[in-house]
Amino acid sequence: MKKLINRPEDVVTEALEAMALAHADLLRVSYDPNIIVRADAPVRGKVGLVSGGGSGHEPMHGGFVGLGMLDAACPGAVFTSPTPDQILAATKAVDGGAGVVHLVKNYTGDILNFEMAADLAREEGIQVEAVVTNDDVAVKDSTWTAGRRGVGVTVLAEKMAGAAAEQRRPLAAVADICRKVNANGRSMGMALTSCTVPQAGKPTFDLPEDEMEIGVGIHGEPGRSRMKLKTAAQITELLVQPILEDLPFRAGDGVLAFVNGLGGTPLIELYVVYRELARILAGRQIRIARSLVGSYITSLDMAGCSITLVKLDDDLLGLWDAPVKTPGLRWGI
Amino acid sequence: MKKLINRPEDVVTEALEAMALAHADLLRVSYDPNIIVRADAPVRGKVGLVSGGGSGHEPMHGGFVGLGMLDAACPGAVFTSPTPDQILAATKAVDGGAGVVHLVKNYTGDILNFEMAADLAREEGIQVEAVVTNDDVAVKDSTWTAGRRGVGVTVLAEKMAGAAAEQRRPLAAVADICRKVNANGRSMGMALTSCTVPQAGKPTFDLPEDEMEIGVGIHGEPGRSRMKLKTAAQITELLVQPILEDLPFRAGDGVLAFVNGLGGTPLIELYVVYRELARILAGRQIRIARSLVGSYITSLDMAGCSITLVKLDDDLLGLWDAPVKTPGLRWGI
Repeated sequence: MKKLINRPEDVVTEALEAMALAHADLLRVSYDPNIIVRADAPVRGKVGLVSGGGSGHEPMHGGFVGLGMLDAACPGAVFTSPTPDQILAATKAVDGGAGVVHLVKNYTGDILNFEMAADLAREEGIQVEAVVTNDDVAVKDSTWTAGRRGVGVTVLAEKMAGAAAEQRRPLAAVADICRKVNANGRSMGMALTSCTVPQAGKPTFDLPEDEMEIGVGIHGEPGRSRMKLKTAAQITELLVQPILEDLPFRAGDGVLAFVNGLGGTPLIELYVVYRELARILAGRQIRIARSLVGSYITSLDMAGCSITLVKLDDDLLGLWDAPVKTPGLRWGI
Repeated sequence: MKKLINRPEDVVTEALEAMALAHADLLRVSYDPNIIVRADAPVRGKVGLVSGGGSGHEPMHGGFVGLGMLDAACPGAVFTSPTPDQILAATKAVDGGAGVVHLVKNYTGDILNFEMAADLAREEGIQVEAVVTNDDVAVKDSTWTAGRRGVGVTVLAEKMAGAAAEQRRPLAAVADICRKVNANGRSMGMALTSCTVPQAGKPTFDLPEDEMEIGVGIHGEPGRSRMKLKTAAQITELLVQPILEDLPFRAGDGVLAFVNGLGGTPLIELYVVYRELARILAGRQIRIARSLVGSYITSLDMAGCSITLVKLDDDLLGLWDAPVKTPGLRWGI
């Protein structure tokens, strides 16, 4: 295992300490339980937006805490759901009296722990609405999931719902933005290599030098099929086809096109994939209204990419363009 | 070779086409010769800032074209200097009558070709000042370099000189900012793995599973020493010690601390390194005034990192904080 780390069991805490040091203007970190909270939280009268999940997907979620996006993130151990006490602490830290939205990726542990925390928060008089993302079209059930997995749409929902909360929309409306982004969005990913969990010390799965995994999950969960390595054009087709068929996206639609790196893949390759995506969408008269190219929801050091498409309407477009100031995503401010 | 590409010889052009599609609001791309130019260039009365070099270091340089940073970038083939005609075309495209600064990393081919282009531009009546970055303290001469290599400081100089040009400072003053950032900055890098050049199809160098290369260049040039893998704390010490001794940095100095990923290393590991860097600097009473953590000057898919420190004065601090709007670096706008 080749990683820039100290003791494997300290990676998450050390990265949190570094984020607190590097981004003191945007966020603060509390430990035991570990939460990352917007520097000015709670914001009086604003809906709080909380997400979280296992670590190892950076910058998601902690890197999206700040103005116009998340109010708090709950980082679990690597690839491990955050605990109810983490989520409860985050919920209490960001409640400004207008209620809190829990944005939860569809993994069984995450769902259970967020539900438990929501119940506890409600007992303390905090209004909580939970929304679950399940945008991964690759497989129906998976290693840690009943139904579809929540992946790239989560990042985009965090951005757009965060903007809605910033505009002081009420709790139900902010939750509805999460639901709309999830309903309008689909994703699929692929791996060129496995990732290596620090405490495991060896690759999560074996992938021969000439093979790839199509439909892989962000923890290395099995996808749709394993096959010989193909060209970027062929790979992009394999990812986009199931996405387009599933919603369905139609000629004339304007979409947010998101090409995401899984952690070990450099930007130049993501642009090569973006070019193929743009070509495929142009052929179907689907218009790329906005784009995002980079590594935003990762799987440690896995090489590979995922593609997410979200149909945009005028409201979502405005929310996407609204100012955001977080370590991982920033514009307009 | 596992990469998201089509034909190896098309990677650079395809990535450029994707950048033109994804960032049409910020930049335009011309082909034959390949140049990336700010969308509103030339800006009348503003000094033009041009950089360039071999491709494979993305987002540098093309990802830094836009408001408040570069006016144009000249992307060569992978790890290959741009040609004089590329540099001349970029220089002519961005000359707004106030002259053009060439910001050149110290590699022999880059120096020669930028010099030739500067001569040709001057013959056409364009004022050109060239500044060479040579911040890498690892080795004195290298595979493609006489003297020290230019690395991470280049990104930071592009940002600060770009802001100076945006403020309509004159040619000599913008060039002086480049010189000051380079004079005040030092870098060193390390590799956990080799990179693989697409057209070579195999790793540039061999690095056993339990070894690392300290002082590696951004094309895989040999560094200071190869040794057994160490902890993040030890690795950071090995990188920072030579940097601090070289300038020298002193107690009370305020620095811009830049932890850079080389392309195959995920963000969580860069934060672990940042924490060690912050600890070492705190122990010497060197204050981190600003920080940058991410993959900004890469070596294709190489796993590893580099550290750059630049002493800041009030002027540089203001230039760093000034608004920037490029695909790779954006804030305040």
